[in-house]
Amino acid sequence: MISVANALQTVLNTTQDYGVEEIPFLKSVGRILKEPVFADSHFPPFNRVAMDGIAIDFYQFKSGQRAFLIEGIQAAGSVQITLQNSKNCIEVMTGAVLPNHTNTVVRYEDVSVENGIATITIDAIIDGQNVHTKGKDRRSGDLLIHENTRISAAEIGVLATVGKSYVKVAKQPKVMIVSTGDELVGVDEIPLAHQIRRSNVFTLVSLLEKLNITSDTTHITDDKPLLKSKIKTYLQQYDVLLFSGAVSKGKYDFLPEVFEELEVEKLFHKVTQRPGKPFWFGRAASLSSSELHVYQNENKQTIVFGFPGNPISTFVNCLAYFYPWYYKSIGLETEEETAILGEDVNFRPNLTYFLQVKLENKKGCIVAFPIAGNGSGDLASLVKTAAFIQLPEDTLAFKKGEVFKIIRYR
Amino acid sequence: MISVANALQTVLNTTQDYGVEEIPFLKSVGRILKEPVFADSHFPPFNRVAMDGIAIDFYQFKSGQRAFLIEGIQAAGSVQITLQNSKNCIEVMTGAVLPNHTNTVVRYEDVSVENGIATITIDAIIDGQNVHTKGKDRRSGDLLIHENTRISAAEIGVLATVGKSYVKVAKQPKVMIVSTGDELVGVDEIPLAHQIRRSNVFTLVSLLEKLNITSDTTHITDDKPLLKSKIKTYLQQYDVLLFSGAVSKGKYDFLPEVFEELEVEKLFHKVTQRPGKPFWFGRAASLSSSELHVYQNENKQTIVFGFPGNPISTFVNCLAYFYPWYYKSIGLETEEETAILGEDVNFRPNLTYFLQVKLENKKGCIVAFPIAGNGSGDLASLVKTAAFIQLPEDTLAFKKGEVFKIIRYR
Repeated sequence: MISVANALQTVLNTTQDYGVEEIPFLKSVGRILKEPVFADSHFPPFNRVAMDGIAIDFYQFKSGQRAFLIEGIQAAGSVQITLQNSKNCIEVMTGAVLPNHTNTVVRYEDVSVENGIATITIDAIIDGQNVHTKGKDRRSGDLLIHENTRISAAEIGVLATVGKSYVKVAKQPKVMIVSTGDELVGVDEIPLAHQIRRSNVFTLVSLLEKLNITSDTTHITDDKPLLKSKIKTYLQQYDVLLFSGAVSKGKYDFLPEVFEELEVEKLFHKVTQRPGKPFWFGRAASLSSSELHVYQNENKQTIVFGFPGNPISTFVNCLAYFYPWYYKSIGLETEEETAILGEDVNFRPNLTYFLQVKLENKKGCIVAFPIAGNGSGDLASLVKTAAFIQLPEDTLAFKKGEVFKIIRYR
Repeated sequence: MISVANALQTVLNTTQDYGVEEIPFLKSVGRILKEPVFADSHFPPFNRVAMDGIAIDFYQFKSGQRAFLIEGIQAAGSVQITLQNSKNCIEVMTGAVLPNHTNTVVRYEDVSVENGIATITIDAIIDGQNVHTKGKDRRSGDLLIHENTRISAAEIGVLATVGKSYVKVAKQPKVMIVSTGDELVGVDEIPLAHQIRRSNVFTLVSLLEKLNITSDTTHITDDKPLLKSKIKTYLQQYDVLLFSGAVSKGKYDFLPEVFEELEVEKLFHKVTQRPGKPFWFGRAASLSSSELHVYQNENKQTIVFGFPGNPISTFVNCLAYFYPWYYKSIGLETEEETAILGEDVNFRPNLTYFLQVKLENKKGCIVAFPIAGNGSGDLASLVKTAAFIQLPEDTLAFKKGEVFKIIRYR
């Protein structure tokens, strides 16, 4: 038995580097950038007109001139033109290059145009106003996006702007999700009196999809030789195996034995937490090099998460252990989120308690209200809540107003 | 000119119902459930063994008996067996049906087994312990998931459990994203001195992808007849048109005129906000019925969002108007999120100020720290922030510690 903190540290010590792949930038949302992105030119790349109106030489305005003959139009997307006579003006459009020999833009709202003459109708304008000067936002070569940023819509816009149609991102681990348990039948089947439908693999698939990981799934019956032969193959083919079930004390909980026989190194079994206590965690030593070259890089280990089979146990352990392991593996730094407990909670067992909570935003603060489920089997209770609040062991009473770590799942 | 509150209300008054479609449950994450989901049986469906151990008749223990002959094993997934002699016991596995004529489970940790006899090693056990009784969590027919829930991994598990391999969800609107502006070139092109690359359409694609909306995109040059003919077609083919650019006062800002000529009803143009002021919003009257049947349902209107072309303007207006419009259209109730301002802000113009902020979680509270960008053209500044804080008009000074609405985008 190991504490939650030690278990998490052990898990984090096994993170792996799955390398980098280059993908079309529009497919990269949610992925982790694996190259720094620099400005390929100044931003803006020219003195850019920031308002629709007229461009003038400010000196003329300062000298008292108010009426300007319109010499031409500078449209966005047109080659820069030149003001021929400094007493004249040029109509300019937002996004256009500021015409040569002009330096200031007066917006249409402050101008009246008649017979080809624009008259400025306000008394004060500022030298250089409404001009977004070349390189004001960023200089060519400036770092725009750090490596290891999670790509969102904001980054997509920047990638487009600098012409990165392909972008390097962290490769995803190859994950197999395995359910066990002879009581389980398919979603499309009608369970007999002693059966229930499979659900944990699908929950896990969805939790991994949130990380943009596509996973494979399978079900293996509680048959030790079959388990052993299948898992042996998966250890060769996958970077990560996630199991749900068969890690406790039951007569048919074969996984710990099978792992041992397959020389999967046990790093811990059982964590002082509720739910999810019988969690088994380990890693498989590197394969022989002949096998290796077929499937994966040398030095890679297959990481094995053996989650307990109760629905909430599998769910919370995926969030509390697999997620941080994944984030560290791909190089994403995440910040711990905390919330304020909305009511008193007593919890007698000396275990870390992952308690389901509803979250409410009150005046900028996140308040967590426990929703009592019926224990680790009550999957439907997750529908009513949004997070787990992590109440530490060695404490019996948790008071309303105290602040604890939360793990959101919606 | 219209206030942000009035603009939002006007937008929300145009929400549409795009109907329902049935899709495989595993594809439904992020979609909005359009049917209530009920328990198809009791949860658990039988008296379920909750610990690996032995099942006994509690009466025997109460009478002082401690050693029980093991009659057999009840595995998970096996047909229920019956205890033949009430002084004996049956080994039981988590997830199994509780054997007939037993009512209490003693876990292996509290039992020693020798020569086929299990001896209970603790003094106190409770009648019915470690049995998850039939229907304890939910009764057959109970409502498990409300209609209009956004489906997450938790709901996926429940859908699997009740055998909903297909599920009814809100259909997505058909969206076309149009950029305009002759200064724009493709992501793969090298801009000339007066050009920049397209970026807003890709930002919008990504923002819509977050809502699981797949959109089409196109670019139209600043050519009025071309704009008119293309937009006429799009009004027939799409539920929503999102434009970026060409809605301000420029000579080539043809969209308002084109919309008018195409009889798109203008609901407002310009909102008292920064950035994003020249926002144009309207809807197209229903098409003639002959055209209608080809493309869409009767009574449907095409909703037209004409966002200003500056990157931050497009970005914030999509979040502040399109998102709430979409959520209301599909029936999702959302809650306003607020944060605590982390430092004083002064803002002189009498406009609602959408200010970019970094968010930090401090003792369960969300603190928003403004990051000054270089105005609405500075797309790269969005990379450093996570949300907009919405500072209301009619106020000049916003104090550290005050609470305002935020709109997150990561």
